[in-house]
Amino acid sequence: MEHPENNSQYKGLVVNSGIEQPSIVNPYLKQMHRKRRQMLSVQEFVDGILAGNVTVLSQAVTLVESVRPEHQAMAQEVIERCLPYSGNSVRIGISGVPGAGKSTSIDVFGLHVLERTGGKLAVLAIDPSSEKTKGSILGDKTRMERLSVHPDVFVRPSPSAGSLGGVARKTRETIILCEAAGFDTIFVETVGVGQSETAVHSMVDFFLLIQLAGTGDELQGIKRGIMEMADGIIINKADGNNIDKAKLAATQFRNALHLFPASESGWTPQVLTYSGFYNIGVKEVWDMVYKYIDFVKANGYFDYRRNEQSKYWMYETINEHLRDSFYNNPRISGMLEQKERQVLGGLETSFAAAKDLLDTYWREIGK
Amino acid sequence: MEHPENNSQYKGLVVNSGIEQPSIVNPYLKQMHRKRRQMLSVQEFVDGILAGNVTVLSQAVTLVESVRPEHQAMAQEVIERCLPYSGNSVRIGISGVPGAGKSTSIDVFGLHVLERTGGKLAVLAIDPSSEKTKGSILGDKTRMERLSVHPDVFVRPSPSAGSLGGVARKTRETIILCEAAGFDTIFVETVGVGQSETAVHSMVDFFLLIQLAGTGDELQGIKRGIMEMADGIIINKADGNNIDKAKLAATQFRNALHLFPASESGWTPQVLTYSGFYNIGVKEVWDMVYKYIDFVKANGYFDYRRNEQSKYWMYETINEHLRDSFYNNPRISGMLEQKERQVLGGLETSFAAAKDLLDTYWREIGK
Repeated sequence: MEHPENNSQYKGLVVNSGIEQPSIVNPYLKQMHRKRRQMLSVQEFVDGILAGNVTVLSQAVTLVESVRPEHQAMAQEVIERCLPYSGNSVRIGISGVPGAGKSTSIDVFGLHVLERTGGKLAVLAIDPSSEKTKGSILGDKTRMERLSVHPDVFVRPSPSAGSLGGVARKTRETIILCEAAGFDTIFVETVGVGQSETAVHSMVDFFLLIQLAGTGDELQGIKRGIMEMADGIIINKADGNNIDKAKLAATQFRNALHLFPASESGWTPQVLTYSGFYNIGVKEVWDMVYKYIDFVKANGYFDYRRNEQSKYWMYETINEHLRDSFYNNPRISGMLEQKERQVLGGLETSFAAAKDLLDTYWREIGK
Repeated sequence: MEHPENNSQYKGLVVNSGIEQPSIVNPYLKQMHRKRRQMLSVQEFVDGILAGNVTVLSQAVTLVESVRPEHQAMAQEVIERCLPYSGNSVRIGISGVPGAGKSTSIDVFGLHVLERTGGKLAVLAIDPSSEKTKGSILGDKTRMERLSVHPDVFVRPSPSAGSLGGVARKTRETIILCEAAGFDTIFVETVGVGQSETAVHSMVDFFLLIQLAGTGDELQGIKRGIMEMADGIIINKADGNNIDKAKLAATQFRNALHLFPASESGWTPQVLTYSGFYNIGVKEVWDMVYKYIDFVKANGYFDYRRNEQSKYWMYETINEHLRDSFYNNPRISGMLEQKERQVLGGLETSFAAAKDLLDTYWREIGK
């Protein structure tokens, strides 16, 4: 990785690292700098991140998560300039219902990966429920006892507000910053109960699903479709009296997966048992993950999937903005409930109601 | 079902059944009527449909499928006025890869349902591939030998052009017309290889997936996620030497389904074997379907799902139009390929590219 000042793309743009940079075009920024002198400049953010300074990285993520337009403009510039230094990592999505032992597993997985790679680990999260609770599944960092105090680990809870699309976008942007800061393994944690799995799946290289052995009750929390996204299913708590049950569950999952069509990558999802608490079978889990990474790097799917993800996020961002513009329009949001009632009451077809709303919107927009 | 003239909602709107109706507000229509004297009026369409006239129904569906704005306006009025007479049917989605014996199955299923209910059957289709082939999976009606000549059956191939969303919308509108014409069982056929299953799933009460016993090769064509949509999986060709293989496959599917969480309806998807060709086990398949219908009518899920579907189609129509307006904008479609390249080349983030495109779009729209 080259330092940005040596990169011709940025020559001329970056004149100095002071506050009044010509590359900052947003009129709000001058004002912001006057008000908040402690705020770093774009150049200081980029330099700090590329130097692997975790304090600067953390502030940059806060900037990314800010809803203020002037922060967002600045964040975009920081991300844009970190982009050429990103991408050089293995991104792992980790999902599982509450109670599956996700925190304990991530703690022990993280230590294993650090030892195995000698690199640096970032643990991020997407938690759509945080919108209501203003909390986050990673909010209580102490649940990952060893990672949360490890010098080579950056733990960041889920952004605490916004739509799932918004939260996921910020997490994806945070991945770019972490990679530019030299974190070469990225965990993205999510709770296996909602649509956030699709979002995580669209930003990771490997999707790991933590399951428990059981009569099916434990599985009720996992939403349909999530199992089919998994590149690996791992049955936790395979220890003591539970070993046979876990092995049986693994066999059942394996049989079930045989009925699914082959994945696009050509990889057959593996099912393994392990114990996060007793640190049993952890190496085998990561043998599987790295075997997959080697496999898809060899057959070209690794790059293909990342490219598809980049495209996905471009289109997803566009579509989300188009929807926001429509549904947040005051006239539309005022009409919507009544139109829904008309449709539910069979007084109007779905299509006529949609047309009416659209006609109103285009008139509003045309104003 | 009341005749529309007795329905106060329509009084005053409907003055006569002639061509110059006050309820037809579209300025194109007068011209159209002059040019094409054989075209029915809205009133004639509605009367014919409510009388169960299949020729008129068929012409109305052609109107629905037309891309001409004057036809679409007229179609919307016909649909709107048929809406109060719709809904009184059982809607079944039937999917399965080519080779699973779908046509033969639909033929024998249709005859069974007609005998069982004494009612009328409409067989529709959603085939996104028809855009390219200009054909349709139901295009060759002779594949359903007995249904295609049955007096109580209305067979209609997939609309032959348009996006999946557009094709699916027309099929959903056609369901309304068929129901108003007294068809009380609706089959919606689709080929199990693409996104059309999601569209079908969003307009039917029961989703039936036809599978084959086999080593897995036959399943390759079924896209991920489709199996999880099924309310029933039926293994075809359970006859002769193949019976044991089919039964084994059923057991495997049953075990696999146990690992899935319970569906929203509270119904556990059933797995059955049958032979479409030899007419074995067909009654049991339809016992299952009607058991499901009774079950969800009793627990309220039947109405809940239909309401959710109506809402879904309202929002889906809106979102599709918003996307169309954006992506069909000449400036945008001119920029899109270059932006994609920038993103794929790592020269721009997905989000910056999206923002640029959106800024351009809003400027264009504001013109």
